[in-house]
Amino acid sequence: MKALCMKCGREREGMEIRCKCGGAFKIDVDIPFYKNVRDNFPYVKKWVSLGEWNTPLIRIEKFWYKLDLLNPTGSYKDRGSVTLISRLYQEGVKEISEDSSGNAGASIAAYGALAGMKVKIFVPSTARGGKLKQIQSYGAEVVKVEGSREEVAISAERSGAYYASHVLQPEFRDGIRSLAYEIVMNRQGKPPSQVFLPTSAGTLLLGVYEGFNHMLREGIIDEMPKIIAVQTEEVSPVCSKLKGKVYNPPVKFSSIADALVSTNPVLLDEMVNVLKETGDCVIVNEREIIDSWNYLRGKGLLVEYSSAVGLAGARKLGDEESVIVITGNGLKVL
Amino acid sequence: MKALCMKCGREREGMEIRCKCGGAFKIDVDIPFYKNVRDNFPYVKKWVSLGEWNTPLIRIEKFWYKLDLLNPTGSYKDRGSVTLISRLYQEGVKEISEDSSGNAGASIAAYGALAGMKVKIFVPSTARGGKLKQIQSYGAEVVKVEGSREEVAISAERSGAYYASHVLQPEFRDGIRSLAYEIVMNRQGKPPSQVFLPTSAGTLLLGVYEGFNHMLREGIIDEMPKIIAVQTEEVSPVCSKLKGKVYNPPVKFSSIADALVSTNPVLLDEMVNVLKETGDCVIVNEREIIDSWNYLRGKGLLVEYSSAVGLAGARKLGDEESVIVITGNGLKVL
Repeated sequence: MKALCMKCGREREGMEIRCKCGGAFKIDVDIPFYKNVRDNFPYVKKWVSLGEWNTPLIRIEKFWYKLDLLNPTGSYKDRGSVTLISRLYQEGVKEISEDSSGNAGASIAAYGALAGMKVKIFVPSTARGGKLKQIQSYGAEVVKVEGSREEVAISAERSGAYYASHVLQPEFRDGIRSLAYEIVMNRQGKPPSQVFLPTSAGTLLLGVYEGFNHMLREGIIDEMPKIIAVQTEEVSPVCSKLKGKVYNPPVKFSSIADALVSTNPVLLDEMVNVLKETGDCVIVNEREIIDSWNYLRGKGLLVEYSSAVGLAGARKLGDEESVIVITGNGLKVL
Repeated sequence: MKALCMKCGREREGMEIRCKCGGAFKIDVDIPFYKNVRDNFPYVKKWVSLGEWNTPLIRIEKFWYKLDLLNPTGSYKDRGSVTLISRLYQEGVKEISEDSSGNAGASIAAYGALAGMKVKIFVPSTARGGKLKQIQSYGAEVVKVEGSREEVAISAERSGAYYASHVLQPEFRDGIRSLAYEIVMNRQGKPPSQVFLPTSAGTLLLGVYEGFNHMLREGIIDEMPKIIAVQTEEVSPVCSKLKGKVYNPPVKFSSIADALVSTNPVLLDEMVNVLKETGDCVIVNEREIIDSWNYLRGKGLLVEYSSAVGLAGARKLGDEESVIVITGNGLKVL
């Protein structure tokens, strides 16, 4: 499987991180669909695995919940870390960098550790809390950077180590196809009506889309589920662009959904194109997020606040065949 | 399937909590083995489920690891909560009590919440930390009790609510059979040479034994794995009794493995009998526990200190076909 630039279509050479035109690469899914989910990732020869994927799909009252918080490091990010780190391990990469003080940083740190890599995680100087401790617990070096979120990313990219960015690396985003496959197989081959996704940088949305699209092309499903991006009032560039509105990011963040922070996502156009083709976007407010979080914990599901965003969206647009992806484990923020 | 007293053999009547003779009840596994794991629990008609069971078995270097920390509430206890709470739900129980400030309390609180029950969790007045917050997050009422661990248990039993004790209730212990089934199926039908279990109150040990024994009786496996109980220097009543030594509990607990606290377990004789038949016991010290915990986090597995005890034991007695059960998630104690 080759990787192509999403902007200019050029084929990736070697392990290029981004295209010369500035675009991000995407794995071209030009293979049949295999029921053994791992077989859909033939570029992985040896799995550097912590037991990710194969998470439960459960029903609680009106909706289905895909419990991706039960991945090894506590978030859906492990779906992409396993494919990315396995590939890098095969390529002989020994030292990696990443920028994230959250779930992506923890996930890359864990899989990097398992692969025996030296891992440097770049975080804003203000980062703290459970996720940062989790990153450190895997033995990663945490580098605090003064300045904006963009400046943190630039530091990670220029660190000298291979930049294992969860946003840019095509193998990371590609691993998230597995989520779409599992949802359909958990439902005995029946695609859901809609899938609700908390949306920030776009890896979840674009990865899930690729998976469903693959199954549609190969005749495994005969209808594409609607992909519903859910955003917060503070961070809603995708919804704004989709609806033709101007988006003004806040000067200071105060939303309880603190994992959803991409005010200017690199993959904005790609996300909007997917939603135009087969989805929608919905914005939820703080009260709705907190109500959804409280509902879930009252049902025995302790999730991240940012993960309650999906349910808040489903309460507006969902139906009985909707699947809500629960992205992160609330144990991290006890 | 009926339940019988482990001491006098009397059949349980209704939902009796313990036998008149003082013994605990045990489900009599008098059914064929079913490949669909849930079918081995025919007394559950409707599953009150959070997506428990079916955890990954992974290989890291010398050993196999069964990642039961990836159960919904972060510990193997969910294996027993699902069968117990499902049964109680069927029986129309509306209000339950339990004594545990740890994983069992969190698990019972979550499943009780899902079942719509009123849940009271009795804890020592000194209890604090992540697990206590987790219990509260599910909406359970936490009742702090002054006095010994035994006095906390007595308060829970006399609370007026139905006493959903993870130690005494046969459906709780019975749910843990599922772990043995999965280990064998994860290994394509081949039983492991040994299974290493951190051992405290005995539900894990006795549940796993019942599962393997069931498969042996039904011809699914042709050899019984050795069941290795691993205990700490401070809390080692099982090892002491097995080896014919006198055990003196400490006046004050200081072990880092703070989930292993049963100095005088109700099920002591039953555990010793299992180990005499098909296992062994090994004691590990603080240095060995910390070394094992550090090894695991350096491989991307953040576990409870008490869960590192299993590896510490395997390092003394294990071989290439040993399985170590990782019982609890380290995210709870970040």
